Amino acid sequence: MKYTIFGESHGPAVGVVLEDVPAGLELDMELVRGMLSRRAPGRDPTATARREADEPRILSGVMDGRTTGAPLCAVIENTDTHSADYEELRFKPRPSHSDYAAWVKYGGNNDPRGGGHFSGRLTAPLVFAGAVAEQILRNKGVSVQTCISVLGGVNDPTPEQVNEIIMAAKSSLDSVGGAVRCTVTGLPAGIGGPDFGENIEGELARAVFAVPAVKGIQFGAGFRFASMRGSQANDPFCMSEGRVATATNNSGGVNGGISNGMPIVFEAAIRPTPSIGMEQNTVDLRTMTDTKLTVKGRHDPCIVPRAVPVIEAAAALTLVDIMQRG
Amino acid sequence: MKYTIFGESHGPAVGVVLEDVPAGLELDMELVRGMLSRRAPGRDPTATARREADEPRILSGVMDGRTTGAPLCAVIENTDTHSADYEELRFKPRPSHSDYAAWVKYGGNNDPRGGGHFSGRLTAPLVFAGAVAEQILRNKGVSVQTCISVLGGVNDPTPEQVNEIIMAAKSSLDSVGGAVRCTVTGLPAGIGGPDFGENIEGELARAVFAVPAVKGIQFGAGFRFASMRGSQANDPFCMSEGRVATATNNSGGVNGGISNGMPIVFEAAIRPTPSIGMEQNTVDLRTMTDTKLTVKGRHDPCIVPRAVPVIEAAAALTLVDIMQRG
Amino acid sequence: MKYTIFGESHGPAVGVVLEDVPAGLELDMELVRGMLSRRAPGRDPTATARREADEPRILSGVMDGRTTGAPLCAVIENTDTHSADYEELRFKPRPSHSDYAAWVKYGGNNDPRGGGHFSGRLTAPLVFAGAVAEQILRNKGVSVQTCISVLGGVNDPTPEQVNEIIMAAKSSLDSVGGAVRCTVTGLPAGIGGPDFGENIEGELARAVFAVPAVKGIQFGAGFRFASMRGSQANDPFCMSEGRVATATNNSGGVNGGISNGMPIVFEAAIRPTPSIGMEQNTVDLRTMTDTKLTVKGRHDPCIVPRAVPVIEAAAALTLVDIMQRG
Amino acid sequence: MKYTIFGESHGPAVGVVLEDVPAGLELDMELVRGMLSRRAPGRDPTATARREADEPRILSGVMDGRTTGAPLCAVIENTDTHSADYEELRFKPRPSHSDYAAWVKYGGNNDPRGGGHFSGRLTAPLVFAGAVAEQILRNKGVSVQTCISVLGGVNDPTPEQVNEIIMAAKSSLDSVGGAVRCTVTGLPAGIGGPDFGENIEGELARAVFAVPAVKGIQFGAGFRFASMRGSQANDPFCMSEGRVATATNNSGGVNGGISNGMPIVFEAAIRPTPSIGMEQNTVDLRTMTDTKLTVKGRHDPCIVPRAVPVIEAAAALTLVDIMQRG
Repeated sequence: MKYTIFGESHGPAVGVVLEDVPAGLELDMELVRGMLSRRAPGRDPTATARREADEPRILSGVMDGRTTGAPLCAVIENTDTHSADYEELRFKPRPSHSDYAAWVKYGGNNDPRGGGHFSGRLTAPLVFAGAVAEQILRNKGVSVQTCISVLGGVNDPTPEQVNEIIMAAKSSLDSVGGAVRCTVTGLPAGIGGPDFGENIEGELARAVFAVPAVKGIQFGAGFRFASMRGSQANDPFCMSEGRVATATNNSGGVNGGISNGMPIVFEAAIRPTPSIGMEQNTVDLRTMTDTKLTVKGRHDPCIVPRAVPVIEAAAALTLVDIMQRG
Repeated sequence: MKYTIFGESHGPAVGVVLEDVPAGLELDMELVRGMLSRRAPGRDPTATARREADEPRILSGVMDGRTTGAPLCAVIENTDTHSADYEELRFKPRPSHSDYAAWVKYGGNNDPRGGGHFSGRLTAPLVFAGAVAEQILRNKGVSVQTCISVLGGVNDPTPEQVNEIIMAAKSSLDSVGGAVRCTVTGLPAGIGGPDFGENIEGELARAVFAVPAVKGIQFGAGFRFASMRGSQANDPFCMSEGRVATATNNSGGVNGGISNGMPIVFEAAIRPTPSIGMEQNTVDLRTMTDTKLTVKGRHDPCIVPRAVPVIEAAAALTLVDIMQRG
Repeated sequence: MKYTIFGESHGPAVGVVLEDVPAGLELDMELVRGMLSRRAPGRDPTATARREADEPRILSGVMDGRTTGAPLCAVIENTDTHSADYEELRFKPRPSHSDYAAWVKYGGNNDPRGGGHFSGRLTAPLVFAGAVAEQILRNKGVSVQTCISVLGGVNDPTPEQVNEIIMAAKSSLDSVGGAVRCTVTGLPAGIGGPDFGENIEGELARAVFAVPAVKGIQFGAGFRFASMRGSQANDPFCMSEGRVATATNNSGGVNGGISNGMPIVFEAAIRPTPSIGMEQNTVDLRTMTDTKLTVKGRHDPCIVPRAVPVIEAAAALTLVDIMQRG
Repeated sequence: MKYTIFGESHGPAVGVVLEDVPAGLELDMELVRGMLSRRAPGRDPTATARREADEPRILSGVMDGRTTGAPLCAVIENTDTHSADYEELRFKPRPSHSDYAAWVKYGGNNDPRGGGHFSGRLTAPLVFAGAVAEQILRNKGVSVQTCISVLGGVNDPTPEQVNEIIMAAKSSLDSVGGAVRCTVTGLPAGIGGPDFGENIEGELARAVFAVPAVKGIQFGAGFRFASMRGSQANDPFCMSEGRVATATNNSGGVNGGISNGMPIVFEAAIRPTPSIGMEQNTVDLRTMTDTKLTVKGRHDPCIVPRAVPVIEAAAALTLVDIMQRG
């Protein structure tokens, strides 16, 4: 199952085309809307003030509530766009945003309004597609759970801590980073492969790095392996309820690029939102001189909570694709 | 430029086919041999005792020392193979190796001798291909440098520390993990793209996870972003020698999946070699009962030093491919 | 440049997503509309009575009339749909339509109304995409010309003959087939390659066979080669206005999968529209018994004229893609 | 199942890497050798005098006669190569060969000896791979039969006619073209899909055009459709032995890119061998002036008989790939 995301933050709409969707799947639109609303901004003071209905319109691939097997296109209109003055942005790139890199790549033709095609807005159709993928996985007994694993340096924060950390950053006109943990249960052993292009870890990484702000991914013990001995790191096999299992899961459910029957566990690092309220140094691309910039407009002091369903979506889409390949 | 690796540890040979190699490249076989010998085992007591000449035989795509533009196939024969008794291995999977996952995926038909297609032996043709890629990059002014960044929990270890840490693990019949840092300089801004399949971070991750034992990858500050504020994390733009640069490089040279002109910096986590000399718990797949296993045969107490040119090769191959796509 | 077509004949809309569109292309909407109107039905008695505005709405990838480099999505709404009774169609497959093959593949879940995703309606977004591709080619000096080469057995028919042949078929409640010739001029030598996936002939064939009703493709002398000797078939090289050319063009501009600088010439065979007004034999998939069917609804007695811009679009898209690959 | 062909006519070896081979397939080497020997030259006066053992050496992916699931690489050494003087060839392109197109594409770096990577020699590893594919198909009850359908303008020639036609061409220092018909039986309905990349006709065409000398492909009635009415062309459905069938098979077993359960029938046009003994006009690429050329060396007066197993191989490989995708 392949997906193609299109759209720009302040263009007419964002959307996705899903190919190779199994025919006959009854779409659970409640699940879709629930997952979209976990991603949607605007419900509490920790998020951006932008408000969008985020109601997907399905243009193809579904008839009478069931998938037809043809490509499924869903579109979400952009309604709450304020594009007052982006001329300055075009020539004063925001630090750690894609503005400058995109300006070079597209020769200044990219849409700079609200980040254009690089905007977090593009994760809405990704989440739509991920919700379809989760239904396919659910029908196969596979479940994907995602949560905040780190926020502003605090491990496994409680909801109260999340709120507190974000409000503290916001009140300092700052932003804060974190990490997200994704756990996949029910995936049978034997899915994936060792080589480039079929490897579960590589394919999940590829999908997850396409989510804006992701800067790292690790499976199981990940970077903690760098301080471990083999005798601590290895996951001994054992029989458990008549099935082969491992006593620990430092491998995060993958050996040699193939699922081993244990839960797939990975963590993705999310950088602090680059849009902060403080004045920052930048350059003016017209004059090629140093200058200052204060980023205006609506932005999240922390996107980690909203990244949770997005990472989940990317994981679900990847797993459906890999399972289809056998 | 695409590459396809083939071979099994104890089969007749390992090799690689490189497609879309630019025609007219004069192959620097000294560079190739140098990079292969950095990967090769068997030169000091910290490595496996297996010895291979690792001399690649080029079957196609090169005439009179220059690439022809046709697919380039290079083969390295397997000579020093000892396949005495692998029957036990087939049914007693080694903890944290791919044995069990592969047994399920391939229905017991995979070659278990020396890890078969999952063996680190397969990194020899990858390094060959990477050496070709490095020459292409060198001709474009791009350079790839790789080193050990962590070993057994020690950051940026000296050669003496590397030796000491590995010998300590070996004398305990144990193994030890680490991490490798790769730095790419000279890559112009504007390479890559935001989407799945063109994103520099995603494509590098995909290639690097196909290297055995890699369990994580992070760009720039990576997982350290999870404890940072935006004001610390952001890389302010500044003019430097008439060119746009950033004052810091927490982004690791990539914004929005596109190179920003600063060095690409990433780190890959390498798990401790799962083959250790101690007795371990496992299961017998014939009887589906718990049992014990002592891994015999030659193996490295630490593959981190040998992973250095391998990660470099995967990075070089990926960058050539992305640069070719524009 | 990749394209993904979505939509179903009687669903909400049809559309296309174009990826890897060069940034900064000023879209000539007159050219787009002109090409769409060549494909559109409903303007004279030789065509189906279905009428659609076929005005594409661009959802992404264009700002102020210029491409941004992000994926370009264009949608054409379906408005003039009559879906009265398709229940019978679902279980009584129309001869030589995709109904039965699709029923098997999609387990009866495909949208049968008006042919669903198999409808000629899907060629509207293909032509939109092709019009974008033609602009890219035009900017490189490459031009694509397409015409009817055969209709109802008549070679290179005049407009009067086209009209007469189609009206004769229509008055017999029948349909008629033909062939379309596409000629590409201005393409430099050295584009394409010999292997699977880069070969100009193979890639053009792949795109052209995705157009409904195409049943054959031949380059240059094509099937006439089967009656020729090498001495007649070979195209001798000669200098012409200071450039290498060939005295004849039996090769249709391609040798070894690579353009040789002469015009690319290919012909595509178009079967007669399977929808005819006469009663036909078929089966009832509910009872698995023989039965009769009279196809109702609006349909073209001949789609060859409308196939002309569609084949041209498929060719233009393929050539842009191959030229981008180098 | 993907395949990558490598090698050059006068290089060390030609070969193929097959990926996604199902594990556990017992290789029938007799079938492999039989198919290779149908392709091999040198057994009678109608063929080139070049003699090669064509014994494939399997480097990977097979253990104890069974496929392991890892990439399967087979290599055939080039032994009987005469590369006396190819300098002239490099600068005097042979008419209707790829010499000139390749010279432009590869900037003069391609291997010109014996056609290099464009040589018919490269069909030996393709046939090897096809023989593996045919075994996979056979295990699924699918059979592929290929024969000469036209030779020198004679339809369905007898062996005696084949011999006579070829010897006549040879004695005139000429060559002769033809066509090959491929018939696939046992393929169930529902395989393939309508879109670019999944369409049976498009995928078969793509593979077949990668075979040197193919200049056309048609399915079922193919170009004869251009002279037909719908009432003649349509294949009425009927029940046959309890299964859905069609009374005729003008569609060649495919509707809408999907198999309909009837035999897949296609024909490929094969141009006369461009290498002929007569003097021909060409250009000298050093001086950019007109000149003459007499092609020396060994060559077939007709490659149609040898193309039979090659087209069969391309078809078998494509069908395995499409069936794996579902």
